This record gives sequence, C-alpha cells and structure tokens, in this order.
Amino acid sequence: MADEFSIIDDYFKPLGEAIASPNVVLGIGDDAALLTGRPGYQLAVSCDTLVAGVHFLADTPPEDIGHKALAVNLSDLAAMGAQPAWFSICLTLPEQNERWIQGLVNGLAVLAKQYQVPLIGGDTTHGPLTLSLQIAGWVPNGEAITRSGAQPGDQIFVAGELGWPYIGLLLLNNTLADTATISKTQTRMARQQLLRPEPQMELGSALRGLATSMLDISDGLSADLMHILKASKVGARLNLAAIPKAAPLTQLAPQQQWDAVNFGDEYKLLFTVPKERIAALQSLQQRLGCSLTAVGEITESRVLTDEHGSTIKAKGYRHF
Amino acid sequence: MADEFSIIDDYFKPLGEAIASPNVVLGIGDDAALLTGRPGYQLAVSCDTLVAGVHFLADTPPEDIGHKALAVNLSDLAAMGAQPAWFSICLTLPEQNERWIQGLVNGLAVLAKQYQVPLIGGDTTHGPLTLSLQIAGWVPNGEAITRSGAQPGDQIFVAGELGWPYIGLLLLNNTLADTATISKTQTRMARQQLLRPEPQMELGSALRGLATSMLDISDGLSADLMHILKASKVGARLNLAAIPKAAPLTQLAPQQQWDAVNFGDEYKLLFTVPKERIAALQSLQQRLGCSLTAVGEITESRVLTDEHGSTIKAKGYRHF
Repeated sequence: MADEFSIIDDYFKPLGEAIASPNVVLGIGDDAALLTGRPGYQLAVSCDTLVAGVHFLADTPPEDIGHKALAVNLSDLAAMGAQPAWFSICLTLPEQNERWIQGLVNGLAVLAKQYQVPLIGGDTTHGPLTLSLQIAGWVPNGEAITRSGAQPGDQIFVAGELGWPYIGLLLLNNTLADTATISKTQTRMARQQLLRPEPQMELGSALRGLATSMLDISDGLSADLMHILKASKVGARLNLAAIPKAAPLTQLAPQQQWDAVNFGDEYKLLFTVPKERIAALQSLQQRLGCSLTAVGEITESRVLTDEHGSTIKAKGYRHF
Repeated sequence: MADEFSIIDDYFKPLGEAIASPNVVLGIGDDAALLTGRPGYQLAVSCDTLVAGVHFLADTPPEDIGHKALAVNLSDLAAMGAQPAWFSICLTLPEQNERWIQGLVNGLAVLAKQYQVPLIGGDTTHGPLTLSLQIAGWVPNGEAITRSGAQPGDQIFVAGELGWPYIGLLLLNNTLADTATISKTQTRMARQQLLRPEPQMELGSALRGLATSMLDISDGLSADLMHILKASKVGARLNLAAIPKAAPLTQLAPQQQWDAVNFGDEYKLLFTVPKERIAALQSLQQRLGCSLTAVGEITESRVLTDEHGSTIKAKGYRHF
C-alpha cells in the first residue's frame, strides 16, 4: 500500500506542476512552499474548512467535495475583488483510499485549471474526514473591496438568484412537496448550485472601483448583509419583494421562501454601489452578461428594515 | 450563548491585534486578510493539522494543544531558514466551550507573542476536534534552505538530543519500566518536549549560508534523513553511536533506543554542512549556545548505511 509520501507525489504534486505560475519558486514537497510577491499588489489570504456530515454528506462523490472546497475558497477571493494566486490543502482522512483521493483531486483540478491556481502544499493526516483549504490571491494595492465601505444612499445588489442551494437540499432529502412542477433543467440547476457552486471571480474583480463594500453570501442574505452593516456602521432598508428568487421557490409558503434566501451556502456576491456609479454598473452587467439585482439601500439608522419599515431580525446558518 | 461571530471577535481578533505588523493591512473579520509583500524576500508558506486522538489525547489541556499547533508550524519555517510573518487557524470543534477556546488562544499566544507573529484569520466549524494552522514567513530571495541541496562529503548535523518526546509518551502512558532512575528535571523535560516543543527559529535563520539542506525532525531521524537523501539524490553514512540521545534512553534496550530516535514529533533541525564551513558552524554554535552534533556524512552511493556499512531501513511515523 502506498504511504503518505507517495500519495503526495502521485496525486497532489501533479496538481501543482500542471499549472505554470511565475510566483511559485518551490511547490509541494519541502517544509514550506516558496513564493514571490507581485509589486503593486497585496495578497488576499483566506481559508475554509469542510467537515463530513456538516458541510457535505459522507457519501458525496469526492469530485463534488473537491470542486466545492475550492469553489468556496475562490469565492472569498472574488468577494475581495482579488484574483487567485495559489492554494494549499490540509486533508484529514479516516482511511487511505486512493480512488477517493483521485476523485477529490479530479474535483479540485476543474477549478484549479479554469482559474490557473496551482496547489502549493498541504498536509495529509489520519482522522475524521475534513478538508481545510487555504487560498491566496492578488489585488492591486488599496483596491480590495472590504465589508466596511458601505455608505448611506448606496444601493445594495445581489448577483444571481437566491434559493437554488436550498431547493437542491430539499430535492436531495426528498422533502420538496411538489416535484412535478420542477423541470429537469431546474432540478439540474438546484443540484449544481448545491454541490458545485461557481465562484463569481470575473464579476468580483470587475467590481473594483465600483462597489464600496462586498462579501459572498455564505451565511444567508440577511446574516451576510448584517456583516456589511456592522463593519460599515450603517443600516439598510431591504426590498423583500425585489429579492431575485429561484423559480421553484414560488411553490413554497412565504416563511419558507424567507428561510430559503437566508439558508446560505450560495456564493453569490452581495455588494453596495453609490447611485452615481449605477450607470457604470449597468454597462458592466451588459459586458459580463450577469444578472445583478438592486434589493435595497444603505441607511444611516443602524437597523435593518423591510420596505415597509418593519425591523428584520437577521437569520442564517450558525455553526453552534 | 455566544455565536460563531462573537467568538471570533472576543477570542481570536485580540490575537491578531496584539501584535503590530507592518505587513498586515487588514486582519481578522473580512472574506480574506490583506497583506503586503516585503521587497527582497520570498514568502515561505506551510500548514499542519493536529487531530484529537491522533496528534494529541482528547483530554490534553487546550493551552498545550495551542502551543504545539503553532510550534510545529513555526518549526516548518525554521527548517527553511525563514522568519515568521503571520498565521491563520481553521478550528473544528465538537461543541462550543468558551473556556476551552480561551485556553487554546492562551496557548497560541505564548509563541505568537514570543515570535511577533499575528493571527490574520481562519474559520470555525462544527465537527470532530481538529486544528489546521497555516503559516507564512519571510526568507531573503534565494536563501531558503530546502531539502535538495545536500552534496557528497557534507557532514550531517542534529540540533539537540533525540528521544525526549518518546520518553514523554512512555511517562504519560505509564509504560516506562524504570521511573526511579529518572530525575524530576528529566521528567519535566520529557513532558515539555512532547507537549510544548520549542521551534528552533533562531538557529534556522542563522544557518542560511551555512547549511546546504535542512528539515525539522517530525517523522523520525531515519525517515527525515531519507527525505533529504531522496530530494538531493544522494546517500548517507549515519554514525549510530554518535546520535545525541536523551539521557533516560540509556535504560532502554538498543532496539527500543533506535525506535525512540525514529519516533519523530521532535522538531529538532537536521541539516547538512560542507566540511569547509564547519569552523563557521562551530562559531555559530558558541554564539547561540546550542548543541549541534555531527551524526554522519552524505555519500554518493544513494543508500543509507550505518558506520559499519550495513544498510539502514528507514523507519518512522506513518499516518496510514
């Protein structure tokens, strides 16, 4: 049976070497990777962990786990307006299973190749199935889009429709009441967005100079909007009727629709734009062919309300 | 009960803010941290995972777990000749326990303050107790000490005595036959080296320009030496009699002594130095007051032998 070191050589090294990067001086296989900086750029660094039974079911195909692990990390870079540079992976495995590892690597490779982000190192240990990915990206000096820049009067935008991952989970659990009204295309879309979310990399970078604050919706619409409000020391009026929702949500009761948009695990960008830049945003939307929807406005009042002025209690995914 | 976000604010943010660093533009609390490069330096990046029941017993005090998690990561930087820049932590916890988290943070803080390495971010998730740390350090362009530079004729050195963590584990498990011959100081030393290893940061940086190859002994003497031999495409003659051993090892049978030096979990530096630089190495040893022992010589033959020419089969810790 192959040992830990031959697993690294056979499966993980190729995922570093397949992608040429002038910033990688030394990749996988030493005590540390060696990397060069990029003059005029800052490094954006983030990490996310996926735990079996919490972030994915234990029988999820390893290709899907690999795709999602890299997708959620790339999405954190997109949410800063950064472009990917490299990633590393700490993998905890209950048993050695080379077919499973090959599947995981194949899943990682899709987005790694698409965004030309090489694997530079990691750690393989024995224990309950867990993946921790660390990612780094480049953003021009001073141009990163943080959570703290929202100003009263800024319009709040969501990129894409919310609720698809929620529908995906209902379908996976066979708990959607009326599946007859859902088309095959919709079923595929819901599964895709739950298991293989696409990070909005191009949009994230393009919003530099336009958005005043941004994050990706991982905790759910209201909880993530609250992160922006707290960091920016502002409030917001959310137009509930304007929230772009996945078509299958219409069959759910209003309360469940609200649950769906606050379910999280979406990886859509949520951002704020001053009114005077809305025309530039519309040009961008046309150029990228993406769907951007205004869902509210930043206010001075430090509270989150709906369009009728009623206070909204933020809800979303909590780990504890 | 405090939620995930207040845990980050209350316990982890202070560990970033307590340590001033000109390279940290934005620390904990956004989608990614923002960091600036250092002209003339490369970034050395590494990560290590500690899993409960594998790398530490579940009832280990959280202060010890925190200390060791940062120590083993710092040690990877030392082994490249790098100086610490920042670290992040992905923490998976079975339940929210603020006293445990405070203990962990206190353990991390000791080395973080000692080496002025700020925490810049991370992820807190629910699941089996696991810590993944990622660390970055600075090394002057082209001066990193990798595993691949050993040349035939180079002398092989170990920094410190091997076997203390092994004795520590025997003591912890009450499986050391003769505890009467072990002094209180030795007992403390064995526990200390198992639970709170000290990374050899100063020595690692000082060996730039002297050592041709280096790593830290985490897998055990022979397994780690094999990593250097493989990467450098050379062999070695190890002088078994010269290996610096912890005093309590003398009560063990020769085979168990060999097991002890190959047990790993040591975090002592193992490095190679050309003969013409030995005088400079001796000056360094005097200046730092550290204990460096020559344990063999690099050879052309691509095999590892003992001083009598018998082939040594490398053994050490394996995860699978």
